[in-house]
Amino acid sequence: MSEAKVGIIMGSASDRPVMQAAADLLTQLGVPYEIDIVSAHRTPEKMFNYAQQAHKRGLQVIIAGAGGAAHLPGMVASLTPLPVIGVPIKSSNSIDGWDSLLSIVQMPNGVPVATVAVNAAQNAGILAAQIIATSNPNLLQQLIAFKEELKAKVIKASEEFKK
Amino acid sequence: MSEAKVGIIMGSASDRPVMQAAADLLTQLGVPYEIDIVSAHRTPEKMFNYAQQAHKRGLQVIIAGAGGAAHLPGMVASLTPLPVIGVPIKSSNSIDGWDSLLSIVQMPNGVPVATVAVNAAQNAGILAAQIIATSNPNLLQQLIAFKEELKAKVIKASEEFKK
Amino acid sequence: MSEAKVGIIMGSASDRPVMQAAADLLTQLGVPYEIDIVSAHRTPEKMFNYAQQAHKRGLQVIIAGAGGAAHLPGMVASLTPLPVIGVPIKSSNSIDGWDSLLSIVQMPNGVPVATVAVNAAQNAGILAAQIIATSNPNLLQQLIAFKEELKAKVIKASEEFKK
Amino acid sequence: MSEAKVGIIMGSASDRPVMQAAADLLTQLGVPYEIDIVSAHRTPEKMFNYAQQAHKRGLQVIIAGAGGAAHLPGMVASLTPLPVIGVPIKSSNSIDGWDSLLSIVQMPNGVPVATVAVNAAQNAGILAAQIIATSNPNLLQQLIAFKEELKAKVIKASEEFKK
Amino acid sequence: MSEAKVGIIMGSASDRPVMQAAADLLTQLGVPYEIDIVSAHRTPEKMFNYAQQAHKRGLQVIIAGAGGAAHLPGMVASLTPLPVIGVPIKSSNSIDGWDSLLSIVQMPNGVPVATVAVNAAQNAGILAAQIIATSNPNLLQQLIAFKEELKAKVIKASEEFKK
Amino acid sequence: MSEAKVGIIMGSASDRPVMQAAADLLTQLGVPYEIDIVSAHRTPEKMFNYAQQAHKRGLQVIIAGAGGAAHLPGMVASLTPLPVIGVPIKSSNSIDGWDSLLSIVQMPNGVPVATVAVNAAQNAGILAAQIIATSNPNLLQQLIAFKEELKAKVIKASEEFKK
Amino acid sequence: MSEAKVGIIMGSASDRPVMQAAADLLTQLGVPYEIDIVSAHRTPEKMFNYAQQAHKRGLQVIIAGAGGAAHLPGMVASLTPLPVIGVPIKSSNSIDGWDSLLSIVQMPNGVPVATVAVNAAQNAGILAAQIIATSNPNLLQQLIAFKEELKAKVIKASEEFKK
Amino acid sequence: MSEAKVGIIMGSASDRPVMQAAADLLTQLGVPYEIDIVSAHRTPEKMFNYAQQAHKRGLQVIIAGAGGAAHLPGMVASLTPLPVIGVPIKSSNSIDGWDSLLSIVQMPNGVPVATVAVNAAQNAGILAAQIIATSNPNLLQQLIAFKEELKAKVIKASEEFKK
Repeated sequence: MSEAKVGIIMGSASDRPVMQAAADLLTQLGVPYEIDIVSAHRTPEKMFNYAQQAHKRGLQVIIAGAGGAAHLPGMVASLTPLPVIGVPIKSSNSIDGWDSLLSIVQMPNGVPVATVAVNAAQNAGILAAQIIATSNPNLLQQLIAFKEELKAKVIKASEEFKK
Repeated sequence: MSEAKVGIIMGSASDRPVMQAAADLLTQLGVPYEIDIVSAHRTPEKMFNYAQQAHKRGLQVIIAGAGGAAHLPGMVASLTPLPVIGVPIKSSNSIDGWDSLLSIVQMPNGVPVATVAVNAAQNAGILAAQIIATSNPNLLQQLIAFKEELKAKVIKASEEFKK
Repeated sequence: MSEAKVGIIMGSASDRPVMQAAADLLTQLGVPYEIDIVSAHRTPEKMFNYAQQAHKRGLQVIIAGAGGAAHLPGMVASLTPLPVIGVPIKSSNSIDGWDSLLSIVQMPNGVPVATVAVNAAQNAGILAAQIIATSNPNLLQQLIAFKEELKAKVIKASEEFKK
Repeated sequence: MSEAKVGIIMGSASDRPVMQAAADLLTQLGVPYEIDIVSAHRTPEKMFNYAQQAHKRGLQVIIAGAGGAAHLPGMVASLTPLPVIGVPIKSSNSIDGWDSLLSIVQMPNGVPVATVAVNAAQNAGILAAQIIATSNPNLLQQLIAFKEELKAKVIKASEEFKK
Repeated sequence: MSEAKVGIIMGSASDRPVMQAAADLLTQLGVPYEIDIVSAHRTPEKMFNYAQQAHKRGLQVIIAGAGGAAHLPGMVASLTPLPVIGVPIKSSNSIDGWDSLLSIVQMPNGVPVATVAVNAAQNAGILAAQIIATSNPNLLQQLIAFKEELKAKVIKASEEFKK
Repeated sequence: MSEAKVGIIMGSASDRPVMQAAADLLTQLGVPYEIDIVSAHRTPEKMFNYAQQAHKRGLQVIIAGAGGAAHLPGMVASLTPLPVIGVPIKSSNSIDGWDSLLSIVQMPNGVPVATVAVNAAQNAGILAAQIIATSNPNLLQQLIAFKEELKAKVIKASEEFKK
Repeated sequence: MSEAKVGIIMGSASDRPVMQAAADLLTQLGVPYEIDIVSAHRTPEKMFNYAQQAHKRGLQVIIAGAGGAAHLPGMVASLTPLPVIGVPIKSSNSIDGWDSLLSIVQMPNGVPVATVAVNAAQNAGILAAQIIATSNPNLLQQLIAFKEELKAKVIKASEEFKK
Repeated sequence: MSEAKVGIIMGSASDRPVMQAAADLLTQLGVPYEIDIVSAHRTPEKMFNYAQQAHKRGLQVIIAGAGGAAHLPGMVASLTPLPVIGVPIKSSNSIDGWDSLLSIVQMPNGVPVATVAVNAAQNAGILAAQIIATSNPNLLQQLIAFKEELKAKVIKASEEFKK
């Protein structure tokens, strides 16, 4: 799996139901990825190694999901030069997602996290593909086609709707 | 200016004091950019054209800043296959930045906006550079050096601090 | 259906259960309307056309419902001279409706959206009828009667209540 | 002043600095209006009379601004068949405008208030004009021209910006 | 029922499950009350009459419950010299109770509403009894006994707890 | 000052600028009061004694103001059978008054605090007078006159406003 | 049970399902504790005695859980020189835990409460053990081992995850 | 400075004005401390070393202050067996302190942070002293005296207040 371009990590196995949507989207677009549990608070050394090695292993983007006081995306961003996409998760220990969102998006100057909507792992996948597509014209075409499909679905729904 | 890699746009001239930090950071890293006012609500046709032409003109990333009911980043994202970075602005008509933040980050499935912290235009610039660096090893090295500088400043501050 | 006075649009078929109440109210008051799916983020061109053509096609009011980062009402308002009524929807991807509400109501100077309560599509229908009634005395009488019915229901509930 | 089409009311003289923008906009568009202080909590009888007489006196729209526990727009809406536009005011006794906004927008079924952004009295004026324009083609043309002016200002700002 | 000392009113029959607790508490303490539906927005004239007549009919305290943009307690307070107790109700059209709470508690100078916790109708009943007890020594003794019972229950729960 | 009917207490001398308005209002209405600093957290024994002795000393109502994690009103309410009015104070250590408000209003079943708006000490004074007036017809007349004065001021402001 | 080092208290028997996790954790680490119901609002005298006697009885840390306007942790902290850990509880009468959290954490200068996450009683237990371990090297070793176990679980979950 | 019992760290030199109060309090109580800048995001390796070495160097408590997406307290807590006290700082890049507070307090199971109020560094100092006092009877006596001083100040303020 060393050819992975995107690393998807999450703080806990319980985040999988949300985060799987990122993996599915990348599969759909043919972007190779790897997926793992890396906990900022329970396995800080693993997180350190993961973040520091990521660009050396050929990863181009990291997607990190976490809930509550969600430190994983920001800490990984502090340790890698790669763009990091953060997915706030509305986990059982979260106050309606507010803590997850603010802990991820409100990063200080120098260390951005590209934050998507609460639980929006699919969008994290799309964003990762968009980033890779900046140097991959084929993938860019796929993304353009993906947008067309979204449009077609809405057009079709509109037609059924009016019946 | 057709060689610009990053397009920085904002809804109003009054957003310039915040958004300039994105431009300054890109200048510092030597990433060519363009900067303009594009209002989703006052110049919707210009926004449409800007977003639809961006990838054809060679832009690789768009940074869009807006305040209040901030629709510019999300609407641009709906019209371009490029990654769009959103900067929520705490403008005078904003409720402490909450409306700007939520209007930008809470995008529906299919159309992500890579949201940074409220007023964090510098971080938007860094993120844009990180995205471009996924296919530009020199820029990646610059980003690694940038992180080292941040570290060095904190170390120096720490030394002065302890005196 | 070209005689429609009110255009009801929503971002997704999943918004129908909420938005139908606007249509039902207009049916009850005999105000002709049309209803469709128009997504700001997935069918931006259709939204553009819809908004720009609305007053030329004889529509007098547009009701637009959306959830999360809800850009549909505001973008339509930017493209039409007609009054636009916005319905914030507490959809599954919304943070308790806060994002929908703020994304719709906090519009910048020059481009108002007449915002009603979260999920209050019936009220959007009433407001549309009130707007049309400003030049339709019969409809105004119907609205006065509608208010009397509301009152009568509460009076009746009060009587049953005291038993 | 019996020819007024729009009634602008506010809870306190201290709301004038915010609410004047509605009057100025209507003056600019040539829409006749009247303006007064009507307090839901301090002059409830006057409010009752104002709201119940408004449509009989020829008013077509009411704009009501209030802060804190802002009951004026909703109470007026309960007493008139006319469309009521609510302006939440971030007054000194308000919690950052949240109380004003929620007290105005979250009206129950049957009694809508067309709510605009916090302190957005100009937008209330535009919305009132849009409502009257549904039966006034000249005013509609003025509103279309108004939108063009907004656009022209942004285009001009953009040009100066790029210099 | 003309001997009622406390008037309990609510905006809708659907508020009864919450508001009944106020009535039950007053029954328990032997304080005569009356209970009715009075809607600020649907029966404003009835509300006016109710509030203006209350002290003339011998009522000493009014308890008013409402949800969403909850105007009933404040409007009644504007029309009566009696103390008014407001119960914010977390109704289906409320944003988690925030709108109800802020619409009731944030009253302007001159017109207080004695606000209790969201859905805390029992506490509204206790507060009404405390107010009446300021001139009723027997009722004061009952309230002292009521507090002792609360204490006794907790002490007993503590004993069972430790087993 | 043993004839005081209302006890005004606050957690800190720094709360005086806000709380003085309660005293001024009571002075205006001729209701005897006493005023003191009683800190729940720094002088808990004094608070205990104050609350437990209040009704024995002839007080009929207690007004308690506090900011941040504001425990004074609720703790006093737990120790006295008298009605307790809570004034949330937006002190320097408060998060915009949210903490003060919620700490005071969200009391559990059995122990109500009659909460007024943030910083609304004048309203606390009025409410205290209303409570005492339930057994004092003269004071009731004064309160009716007070309301008339409020009304007259608004009417006068309205007249000046229209000039 | 007089050898208890940690006192766990809560405002109501209904808080037990949350608070038991603190007890379980201390049992696991072999730290002796006692557990009881002590209500700030219903048994204030018991709370006073408990807090004032705690350090004399040999307790070293107090864990206090409460919901809504949660005064127990702060009031106990005002009465004891011991460190007090506060657990905000998302009880049925709480607004999503916001009131509990703010009532506990926002304590004034001089009287800290060591606040953990909403419902995080297990973490309160760990924190209590960490405090005791500052003078108990064996317990410190156990805590180090506890952290290693957490890590091992995540590592194992990661391995199963990748299969 | 190897005898320090408390380590005070903060993310940036700009946090010093807030955090100094912790140091001052410890100086007042005679508790040896050290103070430094350790940034989770800019000097992650230094943070790692600091946290992992702290208990080996003889520190007994760590106080960590940070603003915005405040990861320093939680990350340090993940790396040390010592109790960690978190101070949310309302820095210029914070949304009124909400992000700082939630990022620090909402830690997941297994890794508590003892959170104090926003900007409450003095309380962090007191809490640190309370923790150390669990095995230091002299310090416990000092803390009891400290509480008495607080009380005396309030009593004195009360006396001046009544004049």
